[in-house]
Amino acid sequence: MANSEFTYVKNFEPPDSLPLSNWIVVRIDGRGFSKLCKKYNFTKPNDKRAIDLMNSAAVQVVKSFHDIVLAYGQSDEYSFVFHESTTLFERRSAKLSTSVATMFTAEYVMQWREFFPEEEMKLCRPFPTFDGRCVCYPKKSILRDYLSWRQADCHINNLYNTTFWSLVLKGGEDGQGMSGTEAEKMLKGTLASDKNEILWKNFGVNYNDEEEVFKKGSVLYRAYDDAVSKTQLEKERKRKMKARIVTEHTDIIGNAFWEKRPYILATKKGDVCNE
Amino acid sequence: MANSEFTYVKNFEPPDSLPLSNWIVVRIDGRGFSKLCKKYNFTKPNDKRAIDLMNSAAVQVVKSFHDIVLAYGQSDEYSFVFHESTTLFERRSAKLSTSVATMFTAEYVMQWREFFPEEEMKLCRPFPTFDGRCVCYPKKSILRDYLSWRQADCHINNLYNTTFWSLVLKGGEDGQGMSGTEAEKMLKGTLASDKNEILWKNFGVNYNDEEEVFKKGSVLYRAYDDAVSKTQLEKERKRKMKARIVTEHTDIIGNAFWEKRPYILATKKGDVCNE
Amino acid sequence: MANSEFTYVKNFEPPDSLPLSNWIVVRIDGRGFSKLCKKYNFTKPNDKRAIDLMNSAAVQVVKSFHDIVLAYGQSDEYSFVFHESTTLFERRSAKLSTSVATMFTAEYVMQWREFFPEEEMKLCRPFPTFDGRCVCYPKKSILRDYLSWRQADCHINNLYNTTFWSLVLKGGEDGQGMSGTEAEKMLKGTLASDKNEILWKNFGVNYNDEEEVFKKGSVLYRAYDDAVSKTQLEKERKRKMKARIVTEHTDIIGNAFWEKRPYILATKKGDVCNE
Amino acid sequence: MANSEFTYVKNFEPPDSLPLSNWIVVRIDGRGFSKLCKKYNFTKPNDKRAIDLMNSAAVQVVKSFHDIVLAYGQSDEYSFVFHESTTLFERRSAKLSTSVATMFTAEYVMQWREFFPEEEMKLCRPFPTFDGRCVCYPKKSILRDYLSWRQADCHINNLYNTTFWSLVLKGGEDGQGMSGTEAEKMLKGTLASDKNEILWKNFGVNYNDEEEVFKKGSVLYRAYDDAVSKTQLEKERKRKMKARIVTEHTDIIGNAFWEKRPYILATKKGDVCNE
Repeated sequence: MANSEFTYVKNFEPPDSLPLSNWIVVRIDGRGFSKLCKKYNFTKPNDKRAIDLMNSAAVQVVKSFHDIVLAYGQSDEYSFVFHESTTLFERRSAKLSTSVATMFTAEYVMQWREFFPEEEMKLCRPFPTFDGRCVCYPKKSILRDYLSWRQADCHINNLYNTTFWSLVLKGGEDGQGMSGTEAEKMLKGTLASDKNEILWKNFGVNYNDEEEVFKKGSVLYRAYDDAVSKTQLEKERKRKMKARIVTEHTDIIGNAFWEKRPYILATKKGDVCNE
Repeated sequence: MANSEFTYVKNFEPPDSLPLSNWIVVRIDGRGFSKLCKKYNFTKPNDKRAIDLMNSAAVQVVKSFHDIVLAYGQSDEYSFVFHESTTLFERRSAKLSTSVATMFTAEYVMQWREFFPEEEMKLCRPFPTFDGRCVCYPKKSILRDYLSWRQADCHINNLYNTTFWSLVLKGGEDGQGMSGTEAEKMLKGTLASDKNEILWKNFGVNYNDEEEVFKKGSVLYRAYDDAVSKTQLEKERKRKMKARIVTEHTDIIGNAFWEKRPYILATKKGDVCNE
Repeated sequence: MANSEFTYVKNFEPPDSLPLSNWIVVRIDGRGFSKLCKKYNFTKPNDKRAIDLMNSAAVQVVKSFHDIVLAYGQSDEYSFVFHESTTLFERRSAKLSTSVATMFTAEYVMQWREFFPEEEMKLCRPFPTFDGRCVCYPKKSILRDYLSWRQADCHINNLYNTTFWSLVLKGGEDGQGMSGTEAEKMLKGTLASDKNEILWKNFGVNYNDEEEVFKKGSVLYRAYDDAVSKTQLEKERKRKMKARIVTEHTDIIGNAFWEKRPYILATKKGDVCNE
Repeated sequence: MANSEFTYVKNFEPPDSLPLSNWIVVRIDGRGFSKLCKKYNFTKPNDKRAIDLMNSAAVQVVKSFHDIVLAYGQSDEYSFVFHESTTLFERRSAKLSTSVATMFTAEYVMQWREFFPEEEMKLCRPFPTFDGRCVCYPKKSILRDYLSWRQADCHINNLYNTTFWSLVLKGGEDGQGMSGTEAEKMLKGTLASDKNEILWKNFGVNYNDEEEVFKKGSVLYRAYDDAVSKTQLEKERKRKMKARIVTEHTDIIGNAFWEKRPYILATKKGDVCNE
């Protein structure tokens, strides 16, 4: 930027580097997506095409930012986890959140036609956009609790939505569709087991047989075919570019996922500290 | 968001509301736009189509966010000024910057074809994206200095670029194109007057006759056809939606622009304070 | 600080410079002063010696920090206003609040004996201490509202306390002292006019005749005997050191005080901006 | 605080709670202590009375704040470590730093006479004060590096100062005192081993025999006579009040100190997370 008598105003920009040695989660959320769902008549309770689009956009984001170690998505939200030692954009909060959110948005609108090729699904204004924010997690265990929080949220909402839309679309005992208000009333205060039973009794649906992608959301990470040795770590950047990005719909609350893939949250050689 | 034992992680999200009674500028900047210029062979020193696209995307942003009182753009950047009394998103910094930046990005990529209809200009990855940030200015006078800073920057860069590319494309004294390095060397340490003279002597170009949009950048604001009365202020929201959004390439450093349109930075009835 | 392999931890100290061109108020508050009042048997509703001690400690703070333009105190709190253009400690928040709060505390405990010479008033643990914080006010008008807020608070509390303690110490209609609970109950929901009447009817007290220091609190500022000329402004630092520091108990909510002493909140030559 | 039309100004106070699950260090530093040393003629290179006073003031701070798990002091600075799970003052940064700094200051000035009973040492203005700040450390290992940093700093400075003042007070090879500038020049660029040799060759001083308090600084923590069981942890608050506070001058860089006292940095039952 060129100099002038007005340059002093630059000093009003506050420093916003996030604290060192914290895992940085950039979570983006669809803006006004309930309206969007109605406008484009998304399938209820889940529109597989919409979720595939979310995942496809997220893959591009993970590919572009090498310091993202894992991403988790469900519904209209996606969380991107940057390694605690990242120095990308000097860890500046606004740079991180806007760069991730705008790339996700650009991918989402540009890929839309692939997932919704029908003429009547053509995007029109207001175009889908996403807000975003950075959150710091100081410990691996808390980061994992964050991810568990989002996956538990996915499960709770999906069980509710599956039951709610079964009642609305396929109806109550008389086989007639319920109104939204009636269904809401019926579900108020019910436990997970109650909802499972409603699904089974009324609709012959075993919730466990629902698709994993709806029950678990989507986990993205880099898959390596071989064990990670010291030398390989040094060639990390190169490897990352080659690595396949995997999209799975699997449990990340328990330990199995993490124990099988210790490299995902590995503390790197030369990191600021060893936990 | 549904509740679970993991919900405590929500408490790690820091509050980020910007201080009250400050003008909020959200400035977005193209990420890696020098590469983009090369990739799509943008005209040098200015590509009118690219600037028109920037302006057209910005118009949509201004239309969507009613609390934006003015926007100023040049090159690959745009500054959106929110009124000091805005309560949009509870003045949360990350919400403001990501919402503006993703809407601008969505508009930019979706409108691309209108401005670059040629087959060879078709957008391919990495798609254009923009980072963004919020900056607070506590006084009207400092906000105006901020805007003056950006416009002075536009002028200084444009004079340099116009001269540089004249030398490179049309050449030095022998009429042959200079190399970039030669041109850079020749311009090092020159004053504005020197550049004006080079343009005039070597290329018969009077810098003052260059297009205003290149010399001044673009100012966007709402134009009202009538004077603003008290009652009208109350109908503000309605009026804003109707108002034409004007794109001008005019001086905003001097007082004339502002004195003619006092309503742009007017302190509103019921504001937190009257300075 | 000497260098070692551990020096990296220094990078965890976050920058905390307060935004430019904002008036900075450091307000300190006595920690646990209701206990202190009981322990040393302070006179109710106001202990003049305790207030004199507060003011005397505050004078030393104002003397030491030349960029303090005004201080206002009441009860166990004091607000110190730093000029919006101060660069003291690079405007670092923690430095400003702790330097002011520790100096005030040191003065308070060291001067205690002067104001409470009696043997039974000798300070013992826990010694009086003060917490503090910085608050930024972007405009003169809002700063004045801040000061008005504190003075209005002083008035409201003092009227309440004067009535409450009259009831408790001198009693209700029967001339017997009320219990605290009874007095509290009686005053619940009363307006200022009601309290004025209780004081007048029951105790023959005209609230307006109460001491100004209790009704208005204390304003500290530098008094200059001569008008401020340009040249004098340049000699500012010298003059400040010479200036008498005045302690007054006067209205700062209205305009009269400020119009008579425009130099107190004057925007200085060479400031970052002129509003 | 009473309500009035001005109460809105309260909203300018920014939230300043420190991030959860981080160890909070409040470090205080003497303001202008090199002047103080000269004014009161402190013994060089170390004044034992002054250090004893620092330690004695720190003990009172540790006693008062139950969530302080350890304190480390050297020269005119003291670091107080609050447990990562503390909720004191809702973890508000300004409250924590000013409360600690003012209590330390009050103790320092009030205890002064005990450590400097001589008439000529009587405190006069400006009284000693301390600035302070909060720093967050997200991991135990980094907190330990912080403490190691301060202790390494103590060692490096003390070796330098011991050598410097030996040269100045007892002289160089001719037995005459050097000037400060000469000593500084002589020590410039020397290694630890060089300084050790100068001390030994010129003054027959074995640095290892210097007092531990000067070489290591002072560590304060609560000493418990018995092992810590679960039930005891529940009675923690009570126990803390009874615990002796120990002042030691011992190595805290190596593991021995910490392995012997695992309870000092123990993650508590019911903490937000287990590392």
